[in-house]
Amino acid sequence: MNQGVEWAAHCAALLAALPPDVAVPAATLAEFHGLPAPYLAKAMQQLAAAGIVTAVPGRRGGYRLARSADQITLLDIVDAVDGDDAAFRCTEIRRQGPSAVPRRYYSPRCGIAAAMWAAEQAFRDSLATVTVADIAAGVQRDSPPAALEKASRWLATALTR
Amino acid sequence: MNQGVEWAAHCAALLAALPPDVAVPAATLAEFHGLPAPYLAKAMQQLAAAGIVTAVPGRRGGYRLARSADQITLLDIVDAVDGDDAAFRCTEIRRQGPSAVPRRYYSPRCGIAAAMWAAEQAFRDSLATVTVADIAAGVQRDSPPAALEKASRWLATALTR
Repeated sequence: MNQGVEWAAHCAALLAALPPDVAVPAATLAEFHGLPAPYLAKAMQQLAAAGIVTAVPGRRGGYRLARSADQITLLDIVDAVDGDDAAFRCTEIRRQGPSAVPRRYYSPRCGIAAAMWAAEQAFRDSLATVTVADIAAGVQRDSPPAALEKASRWLATALTR
Repeated sequence: MNQGVEWAAHCAALLAALPPDVAVPAATLAEFHGLPAPYLAKAMQQLAAAGIVTAVPGRRGGYRLARSADQITLLDIVDAVDGDDAAFRCTEIRRQGPSAVPRRYYSPRCGIAAAMWAAEQAFRDSLATVTVADIAAGVQRDSPPAALEKASRWLATALTR
């Protein structure tokens, strides 16, 4: 899995914790999370392309969530950054080799592929139950109070400089 | 996901359909499935290393299942061929950047990692419900009768030549 998934999820959670009209530049998101700015910029562009965040132009510009944090799921983020292609690719082995018969005689789906894709669907269903709002609430709950305080202070300065 | 997963699952299903004392050489498994022999050999070695198949030496040697097909799951095969490392790697971003405080103040698990790993567990739980016996029964049920017949005849010849 692309490392950008982790970065994008953290950035989305941070944006969810801020007032909805506050936009945060990608460089500030990178600095806040201690991440390499060019790579994070790419992950944020992927979120924007998927309609998860909006790029706000101008002096106080940057990224903000494109919709309410409870309307964005972890699955949306994974699909945006990692793509939504199936991990298992069926190459129809059953129709190869000396036992092959014309393809019209086979069931539409190989049972092995069906089982693999059912497991992938279980993965996706699980991710779809978690929203960015849930994640942001978890960060708020689980973070050391001193870290939250440092974060607030640092952001207040960074976003007004 | 490693393409060997698909190959290994098909080979395990074929071995499950044969009498338990019949061993099939990797080269025969490759020919039967129309797969490149050197690559398939690697996947079979991975199944052997994981204790899913046993390499039987000698003139009528080859691979056979190491235990009953209803005691081998699709998860066993995926773990053997693709490894059982988590797809999501948590780099503890929450402890980076200007808001960081000493690590002892953080909850043991970041909520984002917990949600990603819960989804991976759902994937694994789904694969663990499917046995090689189930897959073999599915192949038997879904294959064109003419293909099953050609397979039997071809294998009978290949395994006695």
